[in-house]
Amino acid sequence: MSTEARKPLAITLGDPCGIGPEIVAKLFADAAFDDHAVVLGDPAPLQREILRLGLPLRVALLDSLDPNDPMADFAVDASDAPERAARIVPVLTPDGHPPLPPDLPIGRVHAAAGAMAAAAVREGARLALRGEVAALVTAPLHKEALAAAGVRHPGHTEMLADLAGLAPGDVAMMLANDELRSVLVTIHVPLAQAIRAVTRDAVLRTIRLAHRALEAGCRAERGAAPRIAVAGLNPHAGEGGLFGDEESREIAPAVAAARAEGIDASGPWPGDTVFARARHFREFDAVVAMYHDQGLIPVKYLGFETGVNVTLGLPFVRTSVDHGTAFDIAGRGVADHRSLLAAARMARRLLAGG
Amino acid sequence: MSTEARKPLAITLGDPCGIGPEIVAKLFADAAFDDHAVVLGDPAPLQREILRLGLPLRVALLDSLDPNDPMADFAVDASDAPERAARIVPVLTPDGHPPLPPDLPIGRVHAAAGAMAAAAVREGARLALRGEVAALVTAPLHKEALAAAGVRHPGHTEMLADLAGLAPGDVAMMLANDELRSVLVTIHVPLAQAIRAVTRDAVLRTIRLAHRALEAGCRAERGAAPRIAVAGLNPHAGEGGLFGDEESREIAPAVAAARAEGIDASGPWPGDTVFARARHFREFDAVVAMYHDQGLIPVKYLGFETGVNVTLGLPFVRTSVDHGTAFDIAGRGVADHRSLLAAARMARRLLAGG
Repeated sequence: MSTEARKPLAITLGDPCGIGPEIVAKLFADAAFDDHAVVLGDPAPLQREILRLGLPLRVALLDSLDPNDPMADFAVDASDAPERAARIVPVLTPDGHPPLPPDLPIGRVHAAAGAMAAAAVREGARLALRGEVAALVTAPLHKEALAAAGVRHPGHTEMLADLAGLAPGDVAMMLANDELRSVLVTIHVPLAQAIRAVTRDAVLRTIRLAHRALEAGCRAERGAAPRIAVAGLNPHAGEGGLFGDEESREIAPAVAAARAEGIDASGPWPGDTVFARARHFREFDAVVAMYHDQGLIPVKYLGFETGVNVTLGLPFVRTSVDHGTAFDIAGRGVADHRSLLAAARMARRLLAGG
Repeated sequence: MSTEARKPLAITLGDPCGIGPEIVAKLFADAAFDDHAVVLGDPAPLQREILRLGLPLRVALLDSLDPNDPMADFAVDASDAPERAARIVPVLTPDGHPPLPPDLPIGRVHAAAGAMAAAAVREGARLALRGEVAALVTAPLHKEALAAAGVRHPGHTEMLADLAGLAPGDVAMMLANDELRSVLVTIHVPLAQAIRAVTRDAVLRTIRLAHRALEAGCRAERGAAPRIAVAGLNPHAGEGGLFGDEESREIAPAVAAARAEGIDASGPWPGDTVFARARHFREFDAVVAMYHDQGLIPVKYLGFETGVNVTLGLPFVRTSVDHGTAFDIAGRGVADHRSLLAAARMARRLLAGG
């Protein structure tokens, strides 16, 4: 096992008013999750969920990720009797951040919750950039809570790009499950604005990021470069110009430029059928989608339990659940942690280069 | 069997340069298709496919749909020996339309092909409006061929609304397969234009059309009105206004107005998850989608073999394949006729009110 693989994953708690604390608690209680990991966030909501769900877990507050910290080997707490052996959940509170108010409402937008959630992401990015954690795995943020806290980024991807000193266009969001991968040219902007942001340069940058992220894996698996399908923006990819000209003006030139660089890109393909063709990686290894819903609808259609969100272009590996804070079910004990488990596993797979 | 049910279905041949003639020939050769039907279009491309594929079919040219026409009972041709019994395919050429040029190129845009395909749709609408056929079932058109022929409608839905004396907003396109139904607010327009066409009135009209189309069936099946989910336009349905205001400005008021009329509408729901929730009609009987790709991606994701396109709001039943002319495979004998079979079956089901 490499040094990188021995380092813990950093798992953020997400918005503490949403299902983040619950799915993190369930992840650590799941025997299928046998990885080393440290939780970033306020320990109180996590403790609340552990008690509510009656899980055999024990929160251990860390001061740092110093490997000599006795808590940092993430062992089972031997002070319990074997039949009640509690797994230790190491928690690191974002550096210098004040604790959450004790009366934090569950399932509601709260500025303090947004601030804590953002602080955990910042702490995770710092640790990942310094190489103190192997990768960053994130639980969901709530965009309104972020805005209420004065955080100007609408989501993880934009925040992480900024923290890594990158422009938003240097990174891209990939949504993946067992059978499909979408990489987005635009993400969290109004659709009208997304259309204007579909430029030759933005499409080309996204194609490149998709190519780079998948190249090692595809060469190992198929002995060939990844097959990148590029979706059109308009119905029927513009139907030869009848339904819009973004395809001929911006997207087709980006595909041509990518091909000139040796990338196996094709398109623009009609959005309504390209994902079916990419399903199970039959014709394509990934689809470059022009906007949020175009790329996410097919990945989520068969269920959002195992989808993983990956940020491409960062100097560290970052994966995330592909669902939201689910305020409507927060605090009810019914949240599903499988997407978080899939995200943690995909982080290790990406670290291993596969 | 009612009089309506005994009348034939009118099946158009679609663009003769595409896979239309092939899938119509395969439909009649499929024992699973035991319905009464007449084909509208030029007999030459149909005959070409029958010969190419070696199908036991015999084209019979009709002068009219007069039930006393000996060809009009669609019988097996008894002049053949039983082991080679050929099913008769009755064909009616659109009234007064000149035949196609004999050197029509397969798999290419041709004005004459677009003109003939449009003429067949017009003939079918006339027959359906006069009650001479039970319903209209259509094979795919090619929009560029229509444009080359000077047809100003971009597709079937717009053309049929016009022929029935309706405004485009009076009809809506529903895409359905065995597990999901999408009804579209906008269809064949550039995405930028679709956004501007997402108005309170347009959304409300579409909700009403979806409600009316499904009401009898849902009341019979579940004893309740259809549950109509309305998708948002922007990422996360606007995320409370952070990613756009069409939801609060246009879509939510339309949902409220529909509810005030007693329709079981809800939303706007985030587009990326609403289709998964509507899958297998678990939470919703149909999803009202704001634009083409949003509604069609999930219906087509699991395969476009059995998807059916239904025009809601017309004074007659009209169903269609949900795929295109597939110029890339036209003339190669590999086209799949299952969507056409599904369209013919759904037409009869809708006639029966189910």
